[in-house]
Amino acid sequence: MAATTARIAVDAMGGDHAPGEIVAGAIRASEELDVNVLLVGDHQQIQDSLKHHAHAPNIEIVEANEIIAMNEGLKGLRRKPKASINVVMDLVKQNRADAVVSAGHSGAAMAAASLRLGRIKGIDRPAIGAVFPTLLEGKSVIILDVGANVDCRPKYLEQFALMGTIYSKYVMGVDQPKVGLLNIGEESSKGNDLALRTYELLENNPKIPFIGNAEGRDVLVGRFDVIVCDGFVGNVLLKFAEAVGEIVLQIMREELPRGWRGKIGGQILKPNLKKLKQRVDHAEHGGALLFGVAGICIISHGSSQAPSIFNAIRLAKEAINNKVIERIQSDESTYLDKMANRSAIVNIEP
Amino acid sequence: MAATTARIAVDAMGGDHAPGEIVAGAIRASEELDVNVLLVGDHQQIQDSLKHHAHAPNIEIVEANEIIAMNEGLKGLRRKPKASINVVMDLVKQNRADAVVSAGHSGAAMAAASLRLGRIKGIDRPAIGAVFPTLLEGKSVIILDVGANVDCRPKYLEQFALMGTIYSKYVMGVDQPKVGLLNIGEESSKGNDLALRTYELLENNPKIPFIGNAEGRDVLVGRFDVIVCDGFVGNVLLKFAEAVGEIVLQIMREELPRGWRGKIGGQILKPNLKKLKQRVDHAEHGGALLFGVAGICIISHGSSQAPSIFNAIRLAKEAINNKVIERIQSDESTYLDKMANRSAIVNIEP
Repeated sequence: MAATTARIAVDAMGGDHAPGEIVAGAIRASEELDVNVLLVGDHQQIQDSLKHHAHAPNIEIVEANEIIAMNEGLKGLRRKPKASINVVMDLVKQNRADAVVSAGHSGAAMAAASLRLGRIKGIDRPAIGAVFPTLLEGKSVIILDVGANVDCRPKYLEQFALMGTIYSKYVMGVDQPKVGLLNIGEESSKGNDLALRTYELLENNPKIPFIGNAEGRDVLVGRFDVIVCDGFVGNVLLKFAEAVGEIVLQIMREELPRGWRGKIGGQILKPNLKKLKQRVDHAEHGGALLFGVAGICIISHGSSQAPSIFNAIRLAKEAINNKVIERIQSDESTYLDKMANRSAIVNIEP
Repeated sequence: MAATTARIAVDAMGGDHAPGEIVAGAIRASEELDVNVLLVGDHQQIQDSLKHHAHAPNIEIVEANEIIAMNEGLKGLRRKPKASINVVMDLVKQNRADAVVSAGHSGAAMAAASLRLGRIKGIDRPAIGAVFPTLLEGKSVIILDVGANVDCRPKYLEQFALMGTIYSKYVMGVDQPKVGLLNIGEESSKGNDLALRTYELLENNPKIPFIGNAEGRDVLVGRFDVIVCDGFVGNVLLKFAEAVGEIVLQIMREELPRGWRGKIGGQILKPNLKKLKQRVDHAEHGGALLFGVAGICIISHGSSQAPSIFNAIRLAKEAINNKVIERIQSDESTYLDKMANRSAIVNIEP
């Protein structure tokens, strides 16, 4: 028996190229992926974007006409239930959709998901995970948390590692994910207080395929599939990485065209340079994922165009079919039992 | 009256290209900079390197014939007083030299300096600062701490900011240095506990030209001259940045030469690509500085060749002539008085 067709709520108003590119990506997904897409946002604007495409039978429009300004923050989220980012979450909560895809602000999506869907039982803190490209073509690494929790306890990082492992395996399709702890040295004796205590938890958790510490230099080489860290370090690293891609491209734009060599050589090299840009530029790759909220939420990069949205919907479908939320829940209950035992042991010691 | 000739103790045995490139850089400095250089290391090896050069009257050899293996760590440092990194520090301690230059391991240099020179009075924790290139050609940013202190208190970061300001002004020659706090957002309300409390200290210290938070994306744009952070985040960022330069160059090496376009275009573009490499590759830029130890210590990048060593000696001379240590000491005493007052005020409050 075939799986039921996945229903994906897509935030048509989120992102730099909304709604045009979002709608285009959603239509392609509805045609190629056996999914039903709920396009959520301003009815008229979505209709206008749909006009550019042939009839799409697996697309439905859900009206969401409130707009949250950048400076409204959490208050805006609470006061405007009909904002698209709130409505997509409600659709999952009401079981009218199985997953959310948005290219809107990841912090806002995180807040909306936490408020409307709540956390998965057994997870203390939801996290934002970012997908980075690595030196190995086609291989990505998920880093979490990249900004939701600036002060973390070791057990939060342990939970991040568990969730990251499940996502890596069942959403990214990595057969045997390798988990690392972001740290300042390879040895288990290295690191700050948080890293030292987290190392011990990760090493002793049989459900986490922990292979050791990941230094800054290891992040992009492709040796790790999941790297955990607190949201402060992760956010600094994410923003630095995004900027570095930009900076390298800018220096290339400045240096390569100089002189006659630049003009002629640059023209000849154009296709090669384009390929290089695709591999270096963060915006060409995935965005953020929400971990630990009680629903599947894929957050595309703000600059997403149709292919990224298509890709995000594909990931959402994978997550639904592979029952990611249920897996986290069941792993978490095992984990919680173990935590209880561990506390007992600790109490016996002097 | 002219200043006395600066005496620089150069660790001839530290770095990937020791002693040949170290000696070459030192000789050039002794010829062009009005400095006396003490070349510290294995007498015979230094002599052999000196043979390749004309007579150098301002060079003296100081024997240091013990070698610390990579795995000996702190014990090796203590047990081998005649290792070159220990002898350079002793020369400063004995007032036979005014500053140290080494391209050896920055952690080992830090430990040797702490053990043999001690800290500057009023500085709780010495720090390692790294000089990063920025998007603005010729403009650098000092980031500290990049690894000496993995768990920091707000007042350490305040002291780092003060020392960074003095170095930026009197060693790097920045007229009006701008100081930033590495953080996850621009607003003063953003950040982890350490960042929030440090922000307050920096904002209220009239000796620190604090202009606000620096996000990961701001590090390399050239808006800041000094950025402070704890040694955990700083180390992750430093190693990530060094690796990113390498990775971009590797992807360039993979993508650019592909096909006939790559072969012809690459040849024509060679000089432009070399310029690009110089701007992207971290190894082409400065290394680490030691802050807070009672002596001037400039730590060049391990891959340093003669030009970097020359440059490091030039920086050391600037630091000596501009009395950097004395300035940190006097600023620190003012600072300590203020801290005492501040505690008094805090005690009065409920």
